[in-house]
Amino acid sequence: MKLGELAQRIGCELEGDPALEVTGLGPIDEAGPEEVTFVANERYVARARSTRAAAVIAAPGIVVAGAALRTADPYRAFVRALRLFHTPYRPAPGIHPTAAISPSARIGERAAVGAYAVIGERVSIGADARIDPHVVIYPDVTIGDRFVAHAGVVVREGVRIGNDVRLQPGAVIGGDGFGYLPGEKGGAEAIPQTGTVVLEDEVEVGAHSTIDRAAVGATRIRRGAKIDNLVMIAHGCDVGEFTFLAAQVGISGSTRIGAGAQLGGQVGAAGHLTIGAGARIGAKSGVGNDVAAGATVASGIPAIDVRRYRRVIAVFSKLPELLQRIRRIEKQLK
Amino acid sequence: MKLGELAQRIGCELEGDPALEVTGLGPIDEAGPEEVTFVANERYVARARSTRAAAVIAAPGIVVAGAALRTADPYRAFVRALRLFHTPYRPAPGIHPTAAISPSARIGERAAVGAYAVIGERVSIGADARIDPHVVIYPDVTIGDRFVAHAGVVVREGVRIGNDVRLQPGAVIGGDGFGYLPGEKGGAEAIPQTGTVVLEDEVEVGAHSTIDRAAVGATRIRRGAKIDNLVMIAHGCDVGEFTFLAAQVGISGSTRIGAGAQLGGQVGAAGHLTIGAGARIGAKSGVGNDVAAGATVASGIPAIDVRRYRRVIAVFSKLPELLQRIRRIEKQLK
Amino acid sequence: MKLGELAQRIGCELEGDPALEVTGLGPIDEAGPEEVTFVANERYVARARSTRAAAVIAAPGIVVAGAALRTADPYRAFVRALRLFHTPYRPAPGIHPTAAISPSARIGERAAVGAYAVIGERVSIGADARIDPHVVIYPDVTIGDRFVAHAGVVVREGVRIGNDVRLQPGAVIGGDGFGYLPGEKGGAEAIPQTGTVVLEDEVEVGAHSTIDRAAVGATRIRRGAKIDNLVMIAHGCDVGEFTFLAAQVGISGSTRIGAGAQLGGQVGAAGHLTIGAGARIGAKSGVGNDVAAGATVASGIPAIDVRRYRRVIAVFSKLPELLQRIRRIEKQLK
Repeated sequence: MKLGELAQRIGCELEGDPALEVTGLGPIDEAGPEEVTFVANERYVARARSTRAAAVIAAPGIVVAGAALRTADPYRAFVRALRLFHTPYRPAPGIHPTAAISPSARIGERAAVGAYAVIGERVSIGADARIDPHVVIYPDVTIGDRFVAHAGVVVREGVRIGNDVRLQPGAVIGGDGFGYLPGEKGGAEAIPQTGTVVLEDEVEVGAHSTIDRAAVGATRIRRGAKIDNLVMIAHGCDVGEFTFLAAQVGISGSTRIGAGAQLGGQVGAAGHLTIGAGARIGAKSGVGNDVAAGATVASGIPAIDVRRYRRVIAVFSKLPELLQRIRRIEKQLK
Repeated sequence: MKLGELAQRIGCELEGDPALEVTGLGPIDEAGPEEVTFVANERYVARARSTRAAAVIAAPGIVVAGAALRTADPYRAFVRALRLFHTPYRPAPGIHPTAAISPSARIGERAAVGAYAVIGERVSIGADARIDPHVVIYPDVTIGDRFVAHAGVVVREGVRIGNDVRLQPGAVIGGDGFGYLPGEKGGAEAIPQTGTVVLEDEVEVGAHSTIDRAAVGATRIRRGAKIDNLVMIAHGCDVGEFTFLAAQVGISGSTRIGAGAQLGGQVGAAGHLTIGAGARIGAKSGVGNDVAAGATVASGIPAIDVRRYRRVIAVFSKLPELLQRIRRIEKQLK
Repeated sequence: MKLGELAQRIGCELEGDPALEVTGLGPIDEAGPEEVTFVANERYVARARSTRAAAVIAAPGIVVAGAALRTADPYRAFVRALRLFHTPYRPAPGIHPTAAISPSARIGERAAVGAYAVIGERVSIGADARIDPHVVIYPDVTIGDRFVAHAGVVVREGVRIGNDVRLQPGAVIGGDGFGYLPGEKGGAEAIPQTGTVVLEDEVEVGAHSTIDRAAVGATRIRRGAKIDNLVMIAHGCDVGEFTFLAAQVGISGSTRIGAGAQLGGQVGAAGHLTIGAGARIGAKSGVGNDVAAGATVASGIPAIDVRRYRRVIAVFSKLPELLQRIRRIEKQLK
């Protein structure tokens, strides 16, 4: 594609030769002389001057090697360019002969169902589904249109899924919640997890994340929530609209997360909490109390040099005694 | 079911109309006027007055809307009610024609084996097994009665499993332990993981948890241990009877956990440690030393407001200097 | 095997009867009187005196019950013994009749492909591959020689894999990276993840670890990197040669880890960072800034008794006020 056409199609102003031919896109350190790259993060501004790329999508004022494609939102322009140059892999519609589909299941038009997929009794799936090889959908699941499930996804019985839901490889929806009572004859007795999971429209769930079914009622992931890999959502949680949960987050049972909240990687939240709408929880935080709507909280201690760390921790664990010494000094000075 | 009959069957004293018909159960905020709910957690006591439910299972003295089902243990009574109203999904006995079962495998009576399950050479499985679609059991595994394995479970070669074991979707039992020596020609050389995993009776393992085989001997999960989702148990660990490990816990190699210990979510333990019987480890703790039997330890820092957090951390990393300033003051005051 | 022969084959000096017959190996607490054990970790030195084993592989000077097999590197000698006594399970070469292999895929000599494995269009795999049941390889993947993939592995489209790569059960290579833009009509818009993943020679990936494909270019895991279970590598990361990443580590997008770095369990790293070559990051650290080459950093707070912990944390969150009180005292003393 000529650079002039590209600039026009991604909404940028071109500083450079519009007739220059470019063939694709690349990261700033790796893009070749026929590729286009971008700079959106200030960490990479210096590299915009040394990149070998033919052109750099960048905000006005950033000095770049080669041609510049100017826009106030370089990241969005780059994403538009990705869509121009890249046709994602998509299996052709059709049902693989080895897919084990119950006669009572209903699957909408134009579905692509891969090898060895299993679709149980009374399952209902909307139009344009993409169900990759080795997906297992248990009985009585209902799913909307444009469903995408990659290999190894498991959807347990009775789960309800809206439109435009996308599940990365190995996501497990509707496993039994972790609930026990002390057994009447000793040991522990599993509490039947009779509820389900609801994934509303536009929910996306990352690879190997697990969303447990509720003991009663439903674990609910609301519209547009985006969940990264290896995340654990326990039984009875309610995850709000347009929330973002980064990788390895863990949410204990019955906790509610308000709309638009964002949780960083490896955050853990105790059960029966309310995290307010729009809250932002820093990576690695341990959330042990309710969080107010709009609050920004943090807790993961940034890693520091190990020698200093040992000295710090030695004092840290003696903090109560330190406070007493200060009190004694203050008394003496009075 | 009539409320009077329900009260009798779940062991509650009824305050209300015994002829009232109820159709099921629901969470306190969602139960409809023909449903029964419960209140066991003090956080929800206030909601017992506003619920639309026909009846509330509650301890004596809790004020409730509608009828009351009184008991000292509302949670247990509610679980009994769950069992009355709910018949869990259970596949009918039978071997799916696509299951790939080695001729040398032996499977007990009344087994339900799902589509595309793979059962290897010389595997032995007891009576009443439920093996869902896409379970893979490698050769030479022995399994007791009433085994439940949901879709995507993998049990590697030679693992030994007792009675009444339940594995949620994607649990991996017996993957190779993570052990390397510096290679004799540089790099790293994998240590053969020649041992196995033993899951004793009544062990339950959550979705996508991984329990690695030992280098030599066995990684052992003892009777009645309950393990939540996305938990990692490394090679050579010994997890005691009736322990509870919450989601995303990680236990490094050769660590022993005593009977009845409880580990909160995202706890990590170093290798070669002993965590004593009955110990309780708070969520997110990093356990770097042995823990005495019966001890309660904690470590995950509760999330706090990010502005305060930044100020706190700035002082935190200067704690050794703070201590020196206090010492200097004390000296001056002497 | 006779003890004399064993000593010779594993490079040890024997103190004991060379004609003694030994039948295998065991852990120090469990080895029987015909087995050999070892002591390499100082925690177990005392047990070397009480083991029932016929012989103990130990460094000179360690007092042992029974015979001694002396060497300066007992762990390596023990590993050699493991290889002598143990023949690991290995499926026989051959393609299982249920494997769904695209006619356009090419698979090298002596491959063992298990039941229900799925190998997509134009996949190329080298010699001596071991592909266990229920592995799914999407189209256009290239893989070198001696590939090992255990059950449930998923390799997404276009991934490139070198020689001698080993993937534990359920590893997911090439899931879509977690990248979104604010949607032009509200909500969030997924950024196409058009890149891929490259696993170089001798890379090993643990059970249920997930390595996401890059938005553009490749997420790269370099030669000899060893990754434990349940690890998350986000899109665009570059993980250096001969690194070790312990279980449940999470690396955010575009972070680079230098050669030989070692990350302890449950470490989390923010995005766009550089962790230098040879750095060692203590378990549970939250890495929020670049780490210098060769640095050793730590951060996970060791678990302490819960009563002390509560008192410590109460002071911890008031650290800024504590500092002010010290400043006030210092001023007063001037």
